[in-house]
Amino acid sequence: MHSRRIALLGGGQLGRMFLENALRYGVHVSVLDPDPECPCASLAQQFVCGRFDDAETVLRFAAGADVVGLEIEHVSVEALDVLKQRGITVIPDPQVLRTINDKGLQKAFYRTNGIPTASYALVEKAEDVRDHAHLLPAYLKARKGGYDGKGVQGLDHVPHGNLPLQGPCVLEQRVDLDRELAVLVVRSASGGTRTYDAVEMVFDPRYNLVSHLLAPARIPVQVAERAQALARRVSDAFAAPGLYAVELFLTRKGELLVNETAPRVHNSGHHTIEACLSSQFDQLLRLYMGWPMGSTQLLCPAAMINLVGGEGSGPAHLGNFEHLLNAPGTYVHWYAKKETRPGRKMGHVTVLPEQNSDLDKAIQEVKVHSALGVSQVNRRVT
Amino acid sequence: MHSRRIALLGGGQLGRMFLENALRYGVHVSVLDPDPECPCASLAQQFVCGRFDDAETVLRFAAGADVVGLEIEHVSVEALDVLKQRGITVIPDPQVLRTINDKGLQKAFYRTNGIPTASYALVEKAEDVRDHAHLLPAYLKARKGGYDGKGVQGLDHVPHGNLPLQGPCVLEQRVDLDRELAVLVVRSASGGTRTYDAVEMVFDPRYNLVSHLLAPARIPVQVAERAQALARRVSDAFAAPGLYAVELFLTRKGELLVNETAPRVHNSGHHTIEACLSSQFDQLLRLYMGWPMGSTQLLCPAAMINLVGGEGSGPAHLGNFEHLLNAPGTYVHWYAKKETRPGRKMGHVTVLPEQNSDLDKAIQEVKVHSALGVSQVNRRVT
Repeated sequence: MHSRRIALLGGGQLGRMFLENALRYGVHVSVLDPDPECPCASLAQQFVCGRFDDAETVLRFAAGADVVGLEIEHVSVEALDVLKQRGITVIPDPQVLRTINDKGLQKAFYRTNGIPTASYALVEKAEDVRDHAHLLPAYLKARKGGYDGKGVQGLDHVPHGNLPLQGPCVLEQRVDLDRELAVLVVRSASGGTRTYDAVEMVFDPRYNLVSHLLAPARIPVQVAERAQALARRVSDAFAAPGLYAVELFLTRKGELLVNETAPRVHNSGHHTIEACLSSQFDQLLRLYMGWPMGSTQLLCPAAMINLVGGEGSGPAHLGNFEHLLNAPGTYVHWYAKKETRPGRKMGHVTVLPEQNSDLDKAIQEVKVHSALGVSQVNRRVT
Repeated sequence: MHSRRIALLGGGQLGRMFLENALRYGVHVSVLDPDPECPCASLAQQFVCGRFDDAETVLRFAAGADVVGLEIEHVSVEALDVLKQRGITVIPDPQVLRTINDKGLQKAFYRTNGIPTASYALVEKAEDVRDHAHLLPAYLKARKGGYDGKGVQGLDHVPHGNLPLQGPCVLEQRVDLDRELAVLVVRSASGGTRTYDAVEMVFDPRYNLVSHLLAPARIPVQVAERAQALARRVSDAFAAPGLYAVELFLTRKGELLVNETAPRVHNSGHHTIEACLSSQFDQLLRLYMGWPMGSTQLLCPAAMINLVGGEGSGPAHLGNFEHLLNAPGTYVHWYAKKETRPGRKMGHVTVLPEQNSDLDKAIQEVKVHSALGVSQVNRRVT
């Protein structure tokens, strides 16, 4: 029915959820991923097995497309430059991606644009840390290549030998954290924006991954509005159409600092599938197709719990599956990944509370049944 | 992840929406349909092109399945009998299907079970109508093979020549109708039930199809509860696991009469995808898999508008598509059918009202933009 052809770089769970929503419109989506058994492989109208970080492969893959998008940042930005020059719609803009893909450039971007962010310095070796010892205790973050909690290390003292991470890093002062928030902003080609409610992210210290999130965040409405305004400022600074998932620190003093931004659909927006009038995946499709933006309104409070692989690798199995489904308003999303690995996102569960039910209790129920359940063969015993 | 294999007879829009929901669980679904370009063809894990009304084809298709289901009633009931005897879970039960597939048997079933239904007689020719002239004005309904408004004729007088429908018919007294309702009941293997709110169906007189529905129905709560209780009685009478979409007449005197029942997911439940905690498609999957039933709770009032093909046949096109998407809380479901035909269901739009918005106005907006839009090439000009 629709003539615009979408080419998506990356075939993981974000791509899969994008496809699930796109299905009801009958749009044509091609997906590129190196893993022939990735979550999108069986679902895309066209699946191409290949590397999205190889410029030539991306150019060949996207040759006939009208829109090129991505669900992972580690793609060939050079290829996106070329595609944009050819007049193809590229979301996110390659320049935005270049800034975001280097945490050093990203921090500098916030500073240049007057966007509050934690104090930092660029470092490459232990001596560099000594020069910026006033930032300690800090986090050391690899400038490139990190994802899902990888490439981040806490640093309390100047290290004696090598840095715990190789290559160029950002040394970021640890803030006196009250909680972590995220705000998702949709930005259209004409510069209009729609902003979702701020959500509260609770992290799993084992993997430095989101354990669960609450929507809306349990913070005063004034703070929530400030967080939304700040996220819009980030999107204004980037000034290109796309989705901006802005992660924020709320300090104990009530200060809001931008942690980092993802220029795409994001884990912090998974609850929008069931809890909001338009989901983040729907918004992205609307941007790709040039359709009007959807409503970001939250229908009711919601929680999202990640199903994360425990220790050991092997075929994935969610043991207490039926128990999860017993709770009303529980939505299981299983990403159809062949194998579980420690810290791998295998699925998520969204919970909308039934009338008079308790969201906190529901979250705990899901955690009890999912923590043990992922990968029955290799379940984490601790 | 799940070991139960589902074999689904029929690959139309109901099957497609079933698959869309099933995707997030990673279950395996095979679909049988004679049309290689049917809405399910590209989406099922396995698609088999063949006739679902041919016993041998169905038996071959369902050989390795654990559960056999359907999304259309006109299947080989004989094959379902055999599969059931082999110990395969068959939903709906073949006996239920046999009763429902013959409108004469269905009416007799209601009468036998003390379920109120409009007065009727079985007729085959004009003289038979004369013997039951006290039922006029009436509807003449083909006992077998009718669907989507086909096989139904109004009858005000005893016809002079032949009946307007061939073959055995039900002559059903026309009731003094206030409005038409539908109640969807989910019935588990253990006989437990979950009942959705009663919805109100508004018909399109051109095609005798549902034009739009409102959930919940705008009727007093006592009437709604009586409608739900009556629908549960129908499911109790059938006494087999499955979904029961019970269509009801509410007369001007406040009487509730069962019109007919569909033993499957149904057009009157499409709003449940976005408006209820568990959709009808999710409930059916849960029954197939032996999982606990989901919550039928309505999150907010909703409307569902069918996108029905106008005059002429040809490639389908929804002209004012973007206009539909401008309204907040509007969900377009396009069934990916290759061609539109008069009265063919091409898609539907569900509307959830944004805060302080007007549902009636939203319905009218959708109607204005969708009525002209379906099949731009062959649009209905009147």
